[in-house]
Amino acid sequence: MQGRSPSDAIKPEVRAASAYTLKHVAADIKLDQNENPYELPQEFKEEVVRRVAARSWGRYPEFVPAAITHTLAQHTGWTEDGILVGNGSNELLQATLLVTLGHGRTVVIPQPTFTLYKLQSSILQANIVTIPLKAADLTFDVDGLVRAAESADVVVICSPNNPTGGLMKQEDLQRILDNAKGIVLVDEAYHEFSGQTALDLLKANPNLVITRTFSKALSMAGLRFGYLMAHPEVAREIHKAKLPYNVNIFTLTAAQLAIERVDLMTKSVQTLISERQRMFNELRKRMGVRTFESCTNFFLIRTAKIASVLFEELYAQGVLVRDVSSYPMLERVLRVTVGTPEQNDRFLAALDNALPKEVRRP
Amino acid sequence: MQGRSPSDAIKPEVRAASAYTLKHVAADIKLDQNENPYELPQEFKEEVVRRVAARSWGRYPEFVPAAITHTLAQHTGWTEDGILVGNGSNELLQATLLVTLGHGRTVVIPQPTFTLYKLQSSILQANIVTIPLKAADLTFDVDGLVRAAESADVVVICSPNNPTGGLMKQEDLQRILDNAKGIVLVDEAYHEFSGQTALDLLKANPNLVITRTFSKALSMAGLRFGYLMAHPEVAREIHKAKLPYNVNIFTLTAAQLAIERVDLMTKSVQTLISERQRMFNELRKRMGVRTFESCTNFFLIRTAKIASVLFEELYAQGVLVRDVSSYPMLERVLRVTVGTPEQNDRFLAALDNALPKEVRRP
Repeated sequence: MQGRSPSDAIKPEVRAASAYTLKHVAADIKLDQNENPYELPQEFKEEVVRRVAARSWGRYPEFVPAAITHTLAQHTGWTEDGILVGNGSNELLQATLLVTLGHGRTVVIPQPTFTLYKLQSSILQANIVTIPLKAADLTFDVDGLVRAAESADVVVICSPNNPTGGLMKQEDLQRILDNAKGIVLVDEAYHEFSGQTALDLLKANPNLVITRTFSKALSMAGLRFGYLMAHPEVAREIHKAKLPYNVNIFTLTAAQLAIERVDLMTKSVQTLISERQRMFNELRKRMGVRTFESCTNFFLIRTAKIASVLFEELYAQGVLVRDVSSYPMLERVLRVTVGTPEQNDRFLAALDNALPKEVRRP
Repeated sequence: MQGRSPSDAIKPEVRAASAYTLKHVAADIKLDQNENPYELPQEFKEEVVRRVAARSWGRYPEFVPAAITHTLAQHTGWTEDGILVGNGSNELLQATLLVTLGHGRTVVIPQPTFTLYKLQSSILQANIVTIPLKAADLTFDVDGLVRAAESADVVVICSPNNPTGGLMKQEDLQRILDNAKGIVLVDEAYHEFSGQTALDLLKANPNLVITRTFSKALSMAGLRFGYLMAHPEVAREIHKAKLPYNVNIFTLTAAQLAIERVDLMTKSVQTLISERQRMFNELRKRMGVRTFESCTNFFLIRTAKIASVLFEELYAQGVLVRDVSSYPMLERVLRVTVGTPEQNDRFLAALDNALPKEVRRP
């Protein structure tokens, strides 16, 4: 090496980027990662591992996993050759950005949203146009997005949005699709909690790409499985950036069984939706707590306290939530995953202990 | 969408690229993917799935898997903060290219080699400088690589090389490292079969990055696990491009146990190395078969026959190998994985049936 530092070989956009990080802390009541607190039934897990133990581990998975793609096509009604599966939906989001972004290309991203889109776009040296949510209620600035979409290669819409919980209306998404120069990538990680899906618009809009995950409603965050739906000619291009054999035999086996038994998790999703509503009702009784509408399995609260202080006060009582106050527009805001009724009660009790009595109950 | 085709949003380099594909065909004797034919012991597999069934599937894996990184540090003697783990080494190769390559940046790749490097580099819009192997014996053109390295951001060396099997000498690798402007990425997927590793050079060379996989010698191709070793300041940058939670709980559990019980596969590696030698001895008796030195668990053969014809004649006898004749310099060449003694005998018998008698035994 000619007397240089090895990091000189790293792209400046990468050196300037902060890594996406999360410190794993143990907690009694874990409400920080938007996971489903209801574990899959033990007999389901036993059936999966029995099948996995009987397979060969020394052989590669199929190059294109035909069985699961076929099952997903039946489950969604979308065409098989327009479906890609990945090691979590993150991998499919990354592949979509890889085939569309680079130096001189433009991506439009609402802010605040899931940080991965911006980090990956920076690494790809794209121009990043951020469109802030409306400060009043943290909903999408649809007019701003429509205008920006006219000259962008990709628009990324997380709907419902993480970390704010808001859903984009179908007619608003259609306006963006109608005006977009390029691809509109809709991340539907939380769609099961919203009662709406962009899939209804896919057939008529060849520039729409949808990703979904098994990590949230389906309670398989530990397994890493996601899928993408697009028109076949778009899926074919995205497929080129995807690594071969990216989903292992365990996840393929589990995901296959999970779709066949999708009923197993329906009840837990219903419970979480009811609990979300109960939490809103409870929180609205508390004068010092501002809430924002959510169509997901989490919600934001804003209080008068500095977020990191309230975070620590909750954590001291065994309740782990996410401090999202470093995101734009989210000063004094925490994100809380909807848990089981017992977990949610523990959170409410901890919150009441942490907030000053005079503002708690008017 | 403004009257355009959605594939207009795809980068031209992607549209021009062919996807990495492999048709999965069933066969009695599968010698096409350089897998280890010796499966992990059933009691090992049972122990892994028992542990996995007892874990929570609904929770994300650790953000940075501390336990396995610690174990890999002990196993390799390299520092923990210079180790990254991935969903197969492919993911780590991709992440390394992501942080170093883009429009106007240059990668040097020997040819022929593993196709992934070139495909991913094309998608990243890099300038690709290919340095052909020496036609006479398919060894590396070290002088050519040294010269090209002087102005490249990345040099990718697969050593031992897939699909040719040749190993780069340590002093040759050191010459490239000494003259390289940027990162030298050494893919050691097959190093266990070669008795050599670039790890010995890592401490003194901060521009060296090494990737390894559990898919070959360790017989875990179905599980997808790989790791990367680099100086901590380089690893930290590569980490930024890597997706979070990329290795699932099954693979983490299995890889952890596999390193603790690495002895389980030592014997199979020794057997495969002996079998490789036996196959060379056998093939050299056959006048119409040209072989090339290999330090891996596979080897090339060149015959007078058109590769696709010989491929089909072997396949008709139940033996599946890889037709690599479309690679540069590999006309009339097939790649054959070293199997069990019985599988190798089946291959030899099938080859003898397929080749004309007069050239077979001089």
